[in-house]
Amino acid sequence: MAYEAWVADEVGGTFTKRSPERGELGPEEVEIAVEHCGICHSDLSMWKNEWGMSEFPTVLGHEVVGRVTALGAHAKGLTVGQRVGVGWNCDSCMHCRQCISGEQHLCSQAQPTIAGHFGGFANSVRAHWAWAIPLPESLNVADAGPLLCGGITVFNPLATFATPQSRVGVIGIGGLGHMAIKFAAAYGCDVTAFTSSESKFEEARGFGANHVVSSRDSEAIQKLEKSFDLLIVTVNVQLDWDSFIASLAANGRMHMVGAVLEPIPVNVFPLLVRQASVGASPTGSPVGMADMLSFAARHNVSPKTEHFPMSQINEAFAHVEAGKARYRVILDPDF
Amino acid sequence: MAYEAWVADEVGGTFTKRSPERGELGPEEVEIAVEHCGICHSDLSMWKNEWGMSEFPTVLGHEVVGRVTALGAHAKGLTVGQRVGVGWNCDSCMHCRQCISGEQHLCSQAQPTIAGHFGGFANSVRAHWAWAIPLPESLNVADAGPLLCGGITVFNPLATFATPQSRVGVIGIGGLGHMAIKFAAAYGCDVTAFTSSESKFEEARGFGANHVVSSRDSEAIQKLEKSFDLLIVTVNVQLDWDSFIASLAANGRMHMVGAVLEPIPVNVFPLLVRQASVGASPTGSPVGMADMLSFAARHNVSPKTEHFPMSQINEAFAHVEAGKARYRVILDPDF
Repeated sequence: MAYEAWVADEVGGTFTKRSPERGELGPEEVEIAVEHCGICHSDLSMWKNEWGMSEFPTVLGHEVVGRVTALGAHAKGLTVGQRVGVGWNCDSCMHCRQCISGEQHLCSQAQPTIAGHFGGFANSVRAHWAWAIPLPESLNVADAGPLLCGGITVFNPLATFATPQSRVGVIGIGGLGHMAIKFAAAYGCDVTAFTSSESKFEEARGFGANHVVSSRDSEAIQKLEKSFDLLIVTVNVQLDWDSFIASLAANGRMHMVGAVLEPIPVNVFPLLVRQASVGASPTGSPVGMADMLSFAARHNVSPKTEHFPMSQINEAFAHVEAGKARYRVILDPDF
Repeated sequence: MAYEAWVADEVGGTFTKRSPERGELGPEEVEIAVEHCGICHSDLSMWKNEWGMSEFPTVLGHEVVGRVTALGAHAKGLTVGQRVGVGWNCDSCMHCRQCISGEQHLCSQAQPTIAGHFGGFANSVRAHWAWAIPLPESLNVADAGPLLCGGITVFNPLATFATPQSRVGVIGIGGLGHMAIKFAAAYGCDVTAFTSSESKFEEARGFGANHVVSSRDSEAIQKLEKSFDLLIVTVNVQLDWDSFIASLAANGRMHMVGAVLEPIPVNVFPLLVRQASVGASPTGSPVGMADMLSFAARHNVSPKTEHFPMSQINEAFAHVEAGKARYRVILDPDF
């Protein structure tokens, strides 16, 4: 099958179908026939080069599920035909401290799937075998893509810092946030959703939120003083951080997973009297992703999605950019 | 013995010796004859009402060691004549979630020893029995006072977030910072001291620092990228936080124990790629203090001090205010 992909040639440029040259499959790589690929907000950020790390021409897409079609000479642990997923990273150095200790997502040489590498808006994608995560049989495959990036991004802090006894707040109810609510509810936590959009209040409850509060209502947030063990912040805009930090319980953690670009002003005193912290994390490790997928399969955690044929990628990006996605858009290859 | 104390009547006012009325000893209280009492930077902050919580007339001093001279009717676990220490807190509600779970220092009703209560610059001080911490026999009593506030403040994050394998940075080498170096060295950590004062470089090595770096030299700090598992920040001024956060290793924590009054601007992206955090904490619990004292006794951790007779309290405060203390001033009662 000849390689075909949806390519943007410049910052914010239209995607056109082409066949860029990829060279030979690397010895540690596997090739995967794309079955579905989600659009993540970071695809938009990279498309617009908001983080200064984009390379053009670009093939975006890093929430891939598909089947292994070819194995490099030294690829391990996978078989042709096996169903796998690929997320934000498609490779890492495998010999640094972080890689060797199982935190490959913190490798300083980690290779993003969509920067200097062709992503999943194509008929196939390549990844290091360790970053092609086997999918549990019982997972809802058509909608699983977004778990590989958005899902692990919110599951990682939950698995690290929460227990089923935790009171968890999720700030921002979009692609990441709605998965965070579902995961936190399935984890057994008491879940509060914070959203600026009243139109999402009822739906947030439907995802499993026990309480819903406006993320712009400082007075309402202040009434929740010392309530939360964990706040998962999925937005990339500035909010009333003082009130949110005040809503942390003793030893609570406000954990950022959205790339807020401007510095967050953190007042030390309210943090200090709570013995609290502000942290952040990116996606997760291969084993973290496998555990997340296993949890999602056991608990039927699946994102709420809209599907577009991949040939409508330009319309789909416009839809996501307009903030209309409810809650994650998935492109299905139709080459 | 009639109660005598050094009293300031107004913000920044001179201390004069007086005998304020204290009323009866409470049923849960113990009375302690003060043998020594350290001057902490927060005594200066309270004297100047920098935190808006001071009450005048005030008796300051919250790094007390002394002997129990009287027990309230319901005081538990202590005997008359026993040597104890009192730190920042002298009481807490004992029935809230934090108190019941052993984190009494996070009780929202915790009673500071020097706000709305008479502190240790006196011939006696009172405290709830649980907040009068028994001193190990082998501790250097004359110099132990500063451990009760400054010592536990830096030991708490060390005991919580470091292991003997950790690379620990201590930012600011004053009263707290020099104890942090000593504790971290005794803990078995690799210790880097950051100070703005070149005159302290050699002394910091003497306290146990393996490396010393200027806290104002951004270039030198940037060379330490991804080095530290824990940074203990004892200063209350703004520094180049971006460079310090960049110096955190994967899963590292920058931990504030100084009350920096202006918000710290925290960039999320550098935190996120390190899975790092910025946290803070106040002093410690009674059990945390007892464990710290036990560790200090076993490892001969003792602050470097200068002693003044308590009648020279005004000169001693001027000395500390001028930044001349090397490294902690202790007042010895001479009523």
